[in-house]
Amino acid sequence: MELHPKAVMPQGFTCTGTSCGLKQKGKDLALFFSERAASAAGVFTLNKFPGAPVILGREIIKKGVLRAIVANSKVSNVGTGQAGIDNAARMAKAVAAEFDIPVEQVIMSSTGVIARQLPIEKIEAGIRGLSGRLGDDPVAATEGIMTTDTYPKAISMDVGDAVLTIVGKGAGMIEPNMATMLVYIFTDAAIEAPALDHILRRAVAVSFNMLSVDTDTSTSDTCIAMANGMAGPVDPKRFMGVLTFACTEMAKRLARDAEGATKLLIASVKGAADDQQAVVIAKALVNSPLVKTMAYGADPNIGRILMAIGKCFECDVDPARISIRINDALLYRNLARVDFDEDAVRRLLGGEEVHIQAELGMGSGKATAYGCDLTEGYIQENAAYYSS
Amino acid sequence: MELHPKAVMPQGFTCTGTSCGLKQKGKDLALFFSERAASAAGVFTLNKFPGAPVILGREIIKKGVLRAIVANSKVSNVGTGQAGIDNAARMAKAVAAEFDIPVEQVIMSSTGVIARQLPIEKIEAGIRGLSGRLGDDPVAATEGIMTTDTYPKAISMDVGDAVLTIVGKGAGMIEPNMATMLVYIFTDAAIEAPALDHILRRAVAVSFNMLSVDTDTSTSDTCIAMANGMAGPVDPKRFMGVLTFACTEMAKRLARDAEGATKLLIASVKGAADDQQAVVIAKALVNSPLVKTMAYGADPNIGRILMAIGKCFECDVDPARISIRINDALLYRNLARVDFDEDAVRRLLGGEEVHIQAELGMGSGKATAYGCDLTEGYIQENAAYYSS
Repeated sequence: MELHPKAVMPQGFTCTGTSCGLKQKGKDLALFFSERAASAAGVFTLNKFPGAPVILGREIIKKGVLRAIVANSKVSNVGTGQAGIDNAARMAKAVAAEFDIPVEQVIMSSTGVIARQLPIEKIEAGIRGLSGRLGDDPVAATEGIMTTDTYPKAISMDVGDAVLTIVGKGAGMIEPNMATMLVYIFTDAAIEAPALDHILRRAVAVSFNMLSVDTDTSTSDTCIAMANGMAGPVDPKRFMGVLTFACTEMAKRLARDAEGATKLLIASVKGAADDQQAVVIAKALVNSPLVKTMAYGADPNIGRILMAIGKCFECDVDPARISIRINDALLYRNLARVDFDEDAVRRLLGGEEVHIQAELGMGSGKATAYGCDLTEGYIQENAAYYSS
Repeated sequence: MELHPKAVMPQGFTCTGTSCGLKQKGKDLALFFSERAASAAGVFTLNKFPGAPVILGREIIKKGVLRAIVANSKVSNVGTGQAGIDNAARMAKAVAAEFDIPVEQVIMSSTGVIARQLPIEKIEAGIRGLSGRLGDDPVAATEGIMTTDTYPKAISMDVGDAVLTIVGKGAGMIEPNMATMLVYIFTDAAIEAPALDHILRRAVAVSFNMLSVDTDTSTSDTCIAMANGMAGPVDPKRFMGVLTFACTEMAKRLARDAEGATKLLIASVKGAADDQQAVVIAKALVNSPLVKTMAYGADPNIGRILMAIGKCFECDVDPARISIRINDALLYRNLARVDFDEDAVRRLLGGEEVHIQAELGMGSGKATAYGCDLTEGYIQENAAYYSS
């Protein structure tokens, strides 16, 4: 599958990013707009302390129709009570007024510091006039939702005659259910909302829900898909394939650009008793601080890999059947360390992608999880982060 | 409860630490000896990839009688197959021969790098002659099992006429079930093995099993208790109280001395639906990388605390009922950030002990977990660790 060399909005979609004064400098507001009503689906964080936009978003998405998405960075509108709910509703109202669209077809997101009220007047003022400044560059819009991301992330791919474009942000507080982030997916393919919902959930399950930066699950995670139908129908299987590929590619980009990360860490588990156990073990591998620092230090530390597999107490694991590879080099088999070329493996580990491959020999369950190494950069970024 | 100013072995117990050449410098072997058969109990790691000493130890402890514990550092004898089992058995045999005691009354531990065979001849040579070098200083012996610990840990307390002494090591790969570490408990109180087992499990549940340095569960975790009866019977309730206090104190010391740690992090959860939910949430708090870096950075980041509570998807949590304190300062209540004195709270967080207190308002469940901050030191120590 091929990405467009440059991401674009599919036909009928426009977008813009702007500064409304939440951040001291840089864009802090993004808007995505469909010129006609689009089928829509969404998945949200499972965190028990969801932000106000998530609380409202869960209701809005039920109707399966959207015209616009508005999102701000810097303040997340989480833990803000009724005032927060009111502010989230005001964001949608301001967009509905500016674009003359139904308020129930606008979904909003906020990302940033928790337990502070949104400076809603600034956001409302920022929304005014946006309808005259729409363009087709998703990258420029995505800049408005960056927090600790180092670059705006956008991908476009073809699906038959249609285009699928996905934009995202997320650099920390990232663990499944759903992966901590804001991700928006736009397509001009014609897909009914129930089908879109079904396809989205399947794609998210193997991509964003298999991504973990730090085991911490954000209160704001949101993934929204909009399909405005302007390119007509597409082959559903083909759409599913492209969406899954694009979501996985975006998950990898989020992992690579995670706070302090220098490497993409991939854990593939095969031969588990079932897929669910494979998921648990693959996530344990990308979540283990000792495996993550091992990747950073480029040391083929088999012990940490065995430890991480073994700490999945509920999984069926037989040490005698396990074999371990790193970037295809066999390290461990038959209860013994293989006599591998250590310098060669260290060179493999020195690369930008560390792939841990575990074969359990118990059944046909398999899963792949995505993460990153753990470095001083993560500590510095998060210890220095001030909540006020 | 009071600790002895200086830890000592209870009557009838002696010990020693020595260098047998596993480490390039420093002690790497410890031996603890009881002059008479002692009632014994033990708990071991739940990791599915247990070390050879754990596999053998689970059988040995079933008889409930021990005379000696032998432990080496540097190589953990984990992931070593039948050769590893044979080597662990040889450690016990060497001690049995040196001290003329039954081999089935010797338990062994190994801690250090995984998936390397023990240099067993060096260990056997190191054990020879130890019977002539026994002393009563538990600190000197505990030096033999240090890995990345910065100092040997030993505590003595009175229980009526008896003494209870607990020694331990553990600095990383520490999470519950049981907490990753080697801990040995010695007492001259008279307690039958079944009662000792019962009391030990209860004490471990609220101390070592509530300790987490990095969510990683070691393959070698072992906690053994020996009671030789030389001081006669003691009040069981009193013994339970002292043991729990001593284990909790040791857990705190392990947390404070964890890899890279600069602070003890305590999370107390009250008002949970039940104790089990309180345990899950308290552990989520001490395990969250974002809460840990918050403690390091001394920032009163309420959002990260709410996030960590909210990511316990299976727990009953109602955001409206939650209140949050740090070191007794109220930060959050009634869905809103309290207008607290931020400089004052930052000063509290700047101390050596950060105590997060969450009241959930759901029931009477409570739990306290122990951990530490996450710093560049942890990264450096674990990224630089070479497994070869």
